[in-house]
Amino acid sequence: MNIENILVTGRIYKGIEKILEARHLSKNLRFLEEDEVSRDDFLWADAYVSFRPTANFEFGNLKWVHSLGAGVDAYLFQRKWDDHVLLTRSVCSFGSQIGEYCLSYILRDLQCHETFQKMQSQKRWEMVEPVSLQTQTVVVYGTGEIGQELAKAFSLLGMMVYGVSLSGASKSYFRQVVTVSEASDLLMQADWVVSTLPLTSETYQLFCSSFFAKLNSAGFINVGRGATVDEPALLEALENGRVRRAVLDVVNKEPLPDESPLWEHPNLTITPHIAAITSPGEAVKCFMETLNKIEKNEPLLNQVDIKKGY
Amino acid sequence: MNIENILVTGRIYKGIEKILEARHLSKNLRFLEEDEVSRDDFLWADAYVSFRPTANFEFGNLKWVHSLGAGVDAYLFQRKWDDHVLLTRSVCSFGSQIGEYCLSYILRDLQCHETFQKMQSQKRWEMVEPVSLQTQTVVVYGTGEIGQELAKAFSLLGMMVYGVSLSGASKSYFRQVVTVSEASDLLMQADWVVSTLPLTSETYQLFCSSFFAKLNSAGFINVGRGATVDEPALLEALENGRVRRAVLDVVNKEPLPDESPLWEHPNLTITPHIAAITSPGEAVKCFMETLNKIEKNEPLLNQVDIKKGY
Repeated sequence: MNIENILVTGRIYKGIEKILEARHLSKNLRFLEEDEVSRDDFLWADAYVSFRPTANFEFGNLKWVHSLGAGVDAYLFQRKWDDHVLLTRSVCSFGSQIGEYCLSYILRDLQCHETFQKMQSQKRWEMVEPVSLQTQTVVVYGTGEIGQELAKAFSLLGMMVYGVSLSGASKSYFRQVVTVSEASDLLMQADWVVSTLPLTSETYQLFCSSFFAKLNSAGFINVGRGATVDEPALLEALENGRVRRAVLDVVNKEPLPDESPLWEHPNLTITPHIAAITSPGEAVKCFMETLNKIEKNEPLLNQVDIKKGY
Repeated sequence: MNIENILVTGRIYKGIEKILEARHLSKNLRFLEEDEVSRDDFLWADAYVSFRPTANFEFGNLKWVHSLGAGVDAYLFQRKWDDHVLLTRSVCSFGSQIGEYCLSYILRDLQCHETFQKMQSQKRWEMVEPVSLQTQTVVVYGTGEIGQELAKAFSLLGMMVYGVSLSGASKSYFRQVVTVSEASDLLMQADWVVSTLPLTSETYQLFCSSFFAKLNSAGFINVGRGATVDEPALLEALENGRVRRAVLDVVNKEPLPDESPLWEHPNLTITPHIAAITSPGEAVKCFMETLNKIEKNEPLLNQVDIKKGY
């Protein structure tokens, strides 16, 4: 495939511009704010590089769309895709970033940070025993690149790691991988459930009341996509104790609206979609690698399966 | 060495009693509260098993003292030891426990938990970028069993780990180990300094104002012994920014007195000496292994060097 004209937009386009300019790439490049992108740009460009389609997105003469994020639901979920257009996604250090995010909240809980903080404020010196990671069972939903990186970090630190995926195919660092319908027994024993799932028609609202009903006071961490969670059902599970603590880096509607009850639940932590951040440097590295492979017709590891939606 | 009469006291003696009774050990055992131990007990016993000497401790007919903790300063620091008595210490899962403790506070900081908590309370959704462990340099004081376990966990997660020890001898998982007097360059670059040092005459108040003056806004974590730190100097370093954040699991005087200013410094976390806890199960395991080796005259890995003091 021959790529000459490349259109770059989205939150970090200026950072990408700065890095690419220094490289004197022999391509025609346009760097634009999302709302500056016009119909002409889509007719001009061979490639579109951004986190998501602009409001006026059209396929025009595009041959290739490269997502700056790992998730591509903004391009595919409840939208029509042109099958002639290649879709690739960024594979950066997301797995290790998300691993650190999850570990930070798991350890905060097991090491009783809130209890010790409260005791310190009251000048109380009383033994409270932290719980070791090595006693903990974690079930990771999604066993792709990111899920596998999580499984690696968790298992290196001695946690017992199980996976849940559509196929149930076994993957490294997981003691066992099962399908969604086979997960009930694992969920009963889970100390933690971490979702890295993409948003597709199969994962939409997968974490619903019947899912939460299977948990026994587990921690629930969502670093995948907000719309995989039925938020009222999660709040109910926090109330009835099926979920002991929830940590959400992603929510149904982002930014989370002021009126959402999620903001105020004492056992729920909200972070503003920061568990994995594409840096301009990593974005350029992944984009350039993908471009080189496309031009040499080499196989792409980061090509999105349009039918699967990830 | 022949051990027949064993005296067990200290905080967890009842838990040890429960486990040992079930094993029907062919030894004479006395399990006592610290203040119940009498002179007669020291004349009767071949072995004394506890975290520390009782107030009325004497060597009597003891041949062996087994410390239930990893630290033995309670037995040795500014006390006289009888060179005919063997001293061993417990080596349990302290390294991994302390590793999880340290990681929890390092990640809490790098993942901006306090910022996000505040933002959540204000219903603010704004991107703040966490910092990856992989950018962080950590200097671990003490490269013994525990220091090495820390180095292992930290390096598996991508941190750059350096060690400081008396000998400067290289050890696994450390990029480099230097002596105390060679550490200045490392300290200038350190994002974190973690001390696992025992209390000896050489480490007493080692972390003083001239030490802190070498740091550039580093985090300081003490999981060794409180008396290695000059506490007023640490408070000053927190004020002048040499130390950005301190986490102390051990302090000069434990329990920390109400009037200590450490309780109230906003950038200082106090935990009540819980980073490594000897469980009765692990205590018995280590004690029995040591006893078996003593009876078979096998070499002991957990024998304390009385002169070195650890």
